[in-house]
Amino acid sequence: MESGAKKWGFQGKPELNAASATTVRGYLDLLNGNINKDNSSSVVPLAHGDPSHFPNFRTTSAAEDAIVDAVRSGKHNFYAPTVGILPARRAIADYLNRDTPYKLSPDDVYLTIGCCQAIEVVMAVLSRPGANILLPRPGFPYYDTWCSYNHLEMRQYDLLPEKGWEVDLDAIETLADENTVAMVIINPGNPCGNVFSYEHLNKVAETARKLGILVVADEAYDNLVFGSTRYVPMRVFGSTVPVLTLGSISKRWIVPGWRLGWLVTRDPNGILKKSGVIDSIIGFLGFSADPATFIQAAIPQIIENTKEEFFSNIICVLRECADICYNTIEEIPFLTCPKKPEGSMFVMVKLNVSMLEGINDDMDFCLKLAKEKSVIILPGRAVGMKNWLRISFAIESSLIREGLARVKDFCRRHAKKPLNR
Amino acid sequence: MESGAKKWGFQGKPELNAASATTVRGYLDLLNGNINKDNSSSVVPLAHGDPSHFPNFRTTSAAEDAIVDAVRSGKHNFYAPTVGILPARRAIADYLNRDTPYKLSPDDVYLTIGCCQAIEVVMAVLSRPGANILLPRPGFPYYDTWCSYNHLEMRQYDLLPEKGWEVDLDAIETLADENTVAMVIINPGNPCGNVFSYEHLNKVAETARKLGILVVADEAYDNLVFGSTRYVPMRVFGSTVPVLTLGSISKRWIVPGWRLGWLVTRDPNGILKKSGVIDSIIGFLGFSADPATFIQAAIPQIIENTKEEFFSNIICVLRECADICYNTIEEIPFLTCPKKPEGSMFVMVKLNVSMLEGINDDMDFCLKLAKEKSVIILPGRAVGMKNWLRISFAIESSLIREGLARVKDFCRRHAKKPLNR
Ligand SMILES: Cc1ncc(COP(=O)(O)O)c(C=O)c1O
Ligand SMILES: Cc1ncc(COP(=O)(O)O)c(C=O)c1O
Repeated sequence: MESGAKKWGFQGKPELNAASATTVRGYLDLLNGNINKDNSSSVVPLAHGDPSHFPNFRTTSAAEDAIVDAVRSGKHNFYAPTVGILPARRAIADYLNRDTPYKLSPDDVYLTIGCCQAIEVVMAVLSRPGANILLPRPGFPYYDTWCSYNHLEMRQYDLLPEKGWEVDLDAIETLADENTVAMVIINPGNPCGNVFSYEHLNKVAETARKLGILVVADEAYDNLVFGSTRYVPMRVFGSTVPVLTLGSISKRWIVPGWRLGWLVTRDPNGILKKSGVIDSIIGFLGFSADPATFIQAAIPQIIENTKEEFFSNIICVLRECADICYNTIEEIPFLTCPKKPEGSMFVMVKLNVSMLEGINDDMDFCLKLAKEKSVIILPGRAVGMKNWLRISFAIESSLIREGLARVKDFCRRHAKKPLNR
Repeated sequence: MESGAKKWGFQGKPELNAASATTVRGYLDLLNGNINKDNSSSVVPLAHGDPSHFPNFRTTSAAEDAIVDAVRSGKHNFYAPTVGILPARRAIADYLNRDTPYKLSPDDVYLTIGCCQAIEVVMAVLSRPGANILLPRPGFPYYDTWCSYNHLEMRQYDLLPEKGWEVDLDAIETLADENTVAMVIINPGNPCGNVFSYEHLNKVAETARKLGILVVADEAYDNLVFGSTRYVPMRVFGSTVPVLTLGSISKRWIVPGWRLGWLVTRDPNGILKKSGVIDSIIGFLGFSADPATFIQAAIPQIIENTKEEFFSNIICVLRECADICYNTIEEIPFLTCPKKPEGSMFVMVKLNVSMLEGINDDMDFCLKLAKEKSVIILPGRAVGMKNWLRISFAIESSLIREGLARVKDFCRRHAKKPLNR
């Protein structure tokens, strides 16, 4: 207590600190803190979803030009409407319409601060006392954070490694009850690098319809596919079940720092309108933070002027990275990869802890790996699967090789004796 | 109910719609909806706090150049740290240090999406069951929105028109109890256009210290003063009482759409640290939305390259606008202005409803004014004072004249008979 002052009447909220510790960034901070500064070798970052640092992942100059033009015009310095400016909503609707037979209207599109804020909005809108939501395991922990914050009960359904990370639809039916409001799918998948087939998404839609729950389709990695499975937007099944699509320019344009995303409603039967969900989305956006206006204003030009070649080039780079990553992991007996990644920037790998000496679990593995080898890998627990690892391959290919070579070396050094080869 | 589907299990949250209706934007939407489209005269907007549309309020090219350079470098496309990037935090600390004898460190500065998100963060961090906060009346309704959202009880203290809109310090002492966590002041004032003196702020600090509450100082209009009272940042009194300063580049640089603000802690006695408030701020920022990275990256150059001349020019324009506004209002007997504005972009004016025929109150006045005269003025109730009006003078001077001439005409037309002159 300060002299002359009453006891101070305010205090912090420990649950806020706890919430932020369980984000991917929270784990990264922890691991980075474990890097041995005396170690001469440079850090190999195999944990993040942000390749924008690497020259092979530089965004297109068309996108930069669009921003420059928007700023230079001096016409986009104003407070934007809370749902986003119309030209940007229209451009995004048209962009998303490229992938589907039907037509979204600009009114179906709400601009957000990256896909992250779209998640925040949906969790705020759907939460109500007693309600629950079905989330994938492994998944994206940002959902958990906002669910906890909003006291929306999370129920986790498994993605099945033996089935190429498909949704365990039986589990969905068992988990759901009359208080279930929605199920979340992430496609292309973070953290698994899987891509759901048309047929599987159709089954997801049928299941959700049967249960009376809506589908939240996180398509932050839309179109980032490089395997044999085509990318299909979930909203194709909008007449079966109402779909909220969450997306952004972060990943496909490699500009995560630009913080421009969207929440798109696809609901030809008007169920979201009738149930009040649309009004609540507009309501929440009415008082929450907005993306910068000139970035919104640049969107039509960004979309129009980005050449197909830029996209195909990024796909090509990602495919090569995924190949190198997968093939190198195959050579490490301590790791098992159930499925070669076909999309996004990640792959899930099982850590065979029993083959290691003095390594308790995934967290221990990642902490020691950071300390001894300056390699950062996300422990599976961060995404809901203990004793797995999430490896990001969206970096320079030489770094993937270098990082995984160090992982191999690390495993050998910590191998149980008979395996020590 | 859709055929083949269970009853849909999700629904909207009406409280979100209600919350957003009470923001200034909610009122503006309502009033704009009342404009008579058949009316040939153009709309005069005297209600908003965004002068960026008007050529006399164009931002400096130095700021635009800084953004262009940041984008063109290609080095700022990454996800920023959740507290903001260090060079921006340092530049803002240095910028704020110009106004005060002591030195803030970059660690005291947290970047936010405008001052708005700084408000959101503070309300989230300070709320806890049973807690209450003291807000000014008239005030800025965005505080009310986030208080309601967080179930933080609001208690309103008056700003006293007869004392040049000073804080009613006696009321503060009466309103506060052991569950009061903070008091909010807005200086320079929105909606009153007042500027608190050093002596008054000192009394605010002493009162808050006595009560053991922290002071949240909303300085969104920092340095926008053009009267006889000097602008003094509240954090000057940080050794008396912990101060959270909220600010942004929105107003001084006339770029509200750039969404770049800050939350600054000033707490030489370490009370905010000890109480956990700092950790909770960091915690909340750990999972909430971030300002675009390249805008953050532009901040050092924006601050360094903006010429003093730009600032003094804006002040000059605002002073002229305030003069015209005040002098014209003085000529309208139906309106009373208790104090000539000395800062910000607004003035509060009492509406003498008893002199008017068929006008029930401020809301009725503003709705009819919009319809009959295409002039948009914010009803006082939007900022907590029924039968007052908030008039914004940060527009072209010809528009102020035109708008107020129409107001005068409107009042005459609706005057009670004996006054009809
Ligand atoms: C599955 C998933 N959803 C959403 C996001 C958020 O992306 P954005 O940068 O658009 O906010 C990410 C980012 O990593 C992600 O992996
Ligand atoms: C008192 C006050 N605080 C905060 C804000 C928010 O400003 P920003 O644009 O920095 O979010 C405003 C904007 O009008 C304001 O008037």
